[in-house]
Amino acid sequence: MTDARIIRLFIDGEPLDLAEVEIESYERALDMRNGVLERTLLWTTPSGKRARLTSKRLVSLVDRHLAVIEYEVTLLDKAAPLDIRSVTAVPSGYSQAGNDPRKSRALGEGVLQPVSHSGQDLRAVLCHQTSRSQLKLACPEMGELRHRARRTLDRAIRRGPGEIRAEQRAYLDEFWADSDYEVGDDAAQQAIRFNLFQILQASARADGAGVAAKGLTGHGYEGHYFWDTEIYVLPFLIYTQPQLARNLLMFRYRTLDKARQRAREVNQRGALFPWRTISGEEASAYYAAGTAQYHINADIVYAIRKYVNATGDTDFLYGPGAEILVETARLWLDLGFFSERHDGQFCIVGVTGPDEYNTVVNNNAFTNLMARENLRFAVTTVEYLAEHLPDAHAALVDATGLEAGEIDEWRRAAENMYLPYSEELGIYLQDDDFLERKPWDLENTPAEKYPLLLNYHPLVIYRHQVIKQADVVLAMFLLRDQFGTEEMKRTYDFYDPMTTGDSSLSVCIQGIVAAELRYMEKARQYARHALLMDLNDVAGNVSDGCHIASMGGTWIMLAQGLVGFRDAGGEFSFRPLRPHDFREVRTRFRIRGNQLEVCIRDGEASYRLLSGPGLDFCHVDEPLSLTPDDPTAVRPCLRTA
Amino acid sequence: MTDARIIRLFIDGEPLDLAEVEIESYERALDMRNGVLERTLLWTTPSGKRARLTSKRLVSLVDRHLAVIEYEVTLLDKAAPLDIRSVTAVPSGYSQAGNDPRKSRALGEGVLQPVSHSGQDLRAVLCHQTSRSQLKLACPEMGELRHRARRTLDRAIRRGPGEIRAEQRAYLDEFWADSDYEVGDDAAQQAIRFNLFQILQASARADGAGVAAKGLTGHGYEGHYFWDTEIYVLPFLIYTQPQLARNLLMFRYRTLDKARQRAREVNQRGALFPWRTISGEEASAYYAAGTAQYHINADIVYAIRKYVNATGDTDFLYGPGAEILVETARLWLDLGFFSERHDGQFCIVGVTGPDEYNTVVNNNAFTNLMARENLRFAVTTVEYLAEHLPDAHAALVDATGLEAGEIDEWRRAAENMYLPYSEELGIYLQDDDFLERKPWDLENTPAEKYPLLLNYHPLVIYRHQVIKQADVVLAMFLLRDQFGTEEMKRTYDFYDPMTTGDSSLSVCIQGIVAAELRYMEKARQYARHALLMDLNDVAGNVSDGCHIASMGGTWIMLAQGLVGFRDAGGEFSFRPLRPHDFREVRTRFRIRGNQLEVCIRDGEASYRLLSGPGLDFCHVDEPLSLTPDDPTAVRPCLRTA
Repeated sequence: MTDARIIRLFIDGEPLDLAEVEIESYERALDMRNGVLERTLLWTTPSGKRARLTSKRLVSLVDRHLAVIEYEVTLLDKAAPLDIRSVTAVPSGYSQAGNDPRKSRALGEGVLQPVSHSGQDLRAVLCHQTSRSQLKLACPEMGELRHRARRTLDRAIRRGPGEIRAEQRAYLDEFWADSDYEVGDDAAQQAIRFNLFQILQASARADGAGVAAKGLTGHGYEGHYFWDTEIYVLPFLIYTQPQLARNLLMFRYRTLDKARQRAREVNQRGALFPWRTISGEEASAYYAAGTAQYHINADIVYAIRKYVNATGDTDFLYGPGAEILVETARLWLDLGFFSERHDGQFCIVGVTGPDEYNTVVNNNAFTNLMARENLRFAVTTVEYLAEHLPDAHAALVDATGLEAGEIDEWRRAAENMYLPYSEELGIYLQDDDFLERKPWDLENTPAEKYPLLLNYHPLVIYRHQVIKQADVVLAMFLLRDQFGTEEMKRTYDFYDPMTTGDSSLSVCIQGIVAAELRYMEKARQYARHALLMDLNDVAGNVSDGCHIASMGGTWIMLAQGLVGFRDAGGEFSFRPLRPHDFREVRTRFRIRGNQLEVCIRDGEASYRLLSGPGLDFCHVDEPLSLTPDDPTAVRPCLRTA
Repeated sequence: MTDARIIRLFIDGEPLDLAEVEIESYERALDMRNGVLERTLLWTTPSGKRARLTSKRLVSLVDRHLAVIEYEVTLLDKAAPLDIRSVTAVPSGYSQAGNDPRKSRALGEGVLQPVSHSGQDLRAVLCHQTSRSQLKLACPEMGELRHRARRTLDRAIRRGPGEIRAEQRAYLDEFWADSDYEVGDDAAQQAIRFNLFQILQASARADGAGVAAKGLTGHGYEGHYFWDTEIYVLPFLIYTQPQLARNLLMFRYRTLDKARQRAREVNQRGALFPWRTISGEEASAYYAAGTAQYHINADIVYAIRKYVNATGDTDFLYGPGAEILVETARLWLDLGFFSERHDGQFCIVGVTGPDEYNTVVNNNAFTNLMARENLRFAVTTVEYLAEHLPDAHAALVDATGLEAGEIDEWRRAAENMYLPYSEELGIYLQDDDFLERKPWDLENTPAEKYPLLLNYHPLVIYRHQVIKQADVVLAMFLLRDQFGTEEMKRTYDFYDPMTTGDSSLSVCIQGIVAAELRYMEKARQYARHALLMDLNDVAGNVSDGCHIASMGGTWIMLAQGLVGFRDAGGEFSFRPLRPHDFREVRTRFRIRGNQLEVCIRDGEASYRLLSGPGLDFCHVDEPLSLTPDDPTAVRPCLRTA
């Protein structure tokens, strides 16, 4: 968008250019309680005058069209003429060098085409349009958008910055009350809140749009949305800000027609959601690590199920959700086949799983496991509608042309889903051929060769047994109740050493599973890495933007790892850990209209129902019971407020 | 290049525009004996005057910089003023519509940048340069090229068109004497000669360059060279025009440094020849059906071996050839690995074989078989040099940094080469997972859905058991002596029905093997298809250019299928067929300095040594002996002139 942040200051005609002038002090503070970015600097002008500048920048979470900059200059010694200019500029291209596919490709000059502008007194309205996709920015389509921009300005000026700040604060007070995760340790607390605040910024006003991989914080991945939203970001929102979660799922639903169209384009029935998109069209350039990630369908359905289980929002499920379920189930049935060579089991070949270091493989375990869930959920939902809600069922049949025999086929595919398994290792294989590849010589790969994707041709990587990011381990985490702990341990033990974590989506998952298996040192390492990824720029690429998915992953890590929260298909439970590093842990969850506070202190976990109809559906007893041989577990103590 | 063919004619000021004017008759004839394209037309001008136009176009096979157009206008009724203009134009873009990857991609305006021009009397010299690769066309690099163009014109004018035509005719007389394949049937003969003539045009002056997929006949594949040269075109040249074959192999040798560089780029040792190139750099945009076709290395080595066996050109083998052998063998050793899971067998995973409908697969049988040949030939050649030619060996070590242990490793890899085999089917599998894919429903695929690559997303094709072009069958043809006939039959029977022939490289090979297996009706079908591919525009895309590789394939088909010529690693033999469709078959081969004429007539095959030291190395007896149960075989009759 047009950059309206630029303010040019002249004192005695001397320009303030941060790169050139003498700065006495400079401070930049992100105030996460008030939702304001504040900068203060002391400047001695060439003629020796000292001035203090304070700017407060606020992008409103309440009014989606409003940003406010308060800019204050104080001359500390003597008076001088001031010249302050507000500049609005179309950003020049973001063509970033090198072959890093994670960075923005050339967004050359001329992305934004000026359409109209108007200026009056101290007010300017600029209207632009993107050159290819014709998206409009305050552009006078029937004058409507421009008028809205004007009304927003009228209202903002009438209310003044103080009131706007108070409103922002009130919004954030509410957010923190619902979503904070307190650990009683300043450094960790800051990192946690930084992550949660970034997720809020990325998703709060995403109504009608998705959450980009970098939120709105950088040009990496060009503002595109992936599965990050559904698998990594939504859990936090589902359990603390369910309305925002619903907005994001509704965004997906609104792109269902484009997903149907995409399925046609790749010669399939049903709907195929895009691996990478902004407005619903597939935008990935490279099918192997793009369109071939059919699992996106199942990821979305997984998130729908989690959302509905947690909120009880059957309106969503029986309407938009059911339609998505039918079309995604159709895709799976059409994509796979009952293989004679595998005794009629349902095989899905030629797909890419989450791990992008092994692409276009046969029977990716993650994909098959998640597709099975997708098919099962479609079967149970449609059958429920047919039996109990004939009107909703009729509407669904009308919207999708659903035929009776389809359900049976989905069930048959789910029941006969083929899963690659190694009897010898006692684990699921990432794909049929995972063991056929040459083990990567990780021991002799120097640190500067990571991430591998920047240092080796894809064909070299594909030829080797090496993993970019959690894949089978991720499936086990997502479908925890389908696996025994010993099986999970074998799986983690096998895959973890060859998982490079070259994707930022990996460490949080590996960390959660490590904690689950009581590999506490490993879990702590992963947790630290995930938590500080952006605040400490662990991966060295925060300049491209924050890793929003990893930030969502840190919340899952805290919720699962510390509080031991579990949602096994709508059965909720807690199994808190005795935290080594934190004095006191306190956080809140929203589950089916209840708000529950969980606190761990002095080796004791307590639960308080703050509001809502009650927790009788929430099985807190059994999982809370102390496991004698698990010294890290805390004693349970259920208190209802 | 600049198009200098355009001649504009005006009679009475009326322009001759073929699209607009009234044409009484029009004839276009390619004279393959004289190497001239001749056009004659009768035109009645708007004012009623009749004129006959004759143009003769000759692109010299002798003088590589010369083309001549003779243009003759005869007014048949009465005199009229004539205006004749010769136009030289830079061709505008060839941006061809649609998603057909075989067509030229956008060669937009401005490919050729004018550098300089000069005109004098009736002579013009235009100098251009390609905009990206900076290739020069009569461009004054130190004045040299421009001067050469001028000298060519001086010489041509001095000699006149008659002498130039005579020279062209003499060249072609020699070509046909060496390379004709007579069958005594007018229609078939025309098609055969058309194919051979096109190969000549594509390769005669390719000294210093390669043979493009379309020769110089069209924009398809943008003038790029592939493996077509080595596997499809070279056999004809090796056995009838060995000097042209040597030129093409020397072209490959001159790109060896770029192939070394390319290997570095894809993180491998040795050299990797480009799948698609003009000047030696890899130009394929898409690795799956491009760089992943590592078999190009083995294809080149295969052609070298065939060339050396046929010619005895040990100078080539012990110099350039040996260097290629060392670097390609290195690539294979580095690309594959001794797999613990397969008892230490040498596996090569993540490659694409000839069949581009199954890409980035594990252990493509063709690749592994051909790599084994590559490794073996490298071992025997280097060992021979070490033992017998210490100087050549020392030069090789100097050029390649060859170390003693390398040879043993190549031998070990060759001896332990893993080959995917189905005990159940008794055949080699195209790759490890070939049977895992879903069989394509060929029965219900309508004709307009072919070629599949234009009608289905690659991921759909990759997911299925369906073949674009001969793969295992091609390996069996190339390495005929390594397979029994029964095995070959099982292999062909299995793969032929699922081979779509969507590549023009397929039918000739399927046809040869069909003939070998005495599936004569099938062989005849394939042969007809291959032979008439361009003359009858069987594939409907001759407008993109002639299929030079397929034309080369038809010669192989004739040589193998009719005359029954075989080269089993330097052991030559003939096993002629009794031709059903042809009265008399007559052709010539050059083998180790001999020229041999083979003739089949009246159920009898005769052999005549036209020149050379003798055929004692050529095992004609045993394979020529009549097989009693093979009624199609002819009686042998060896006559030495």
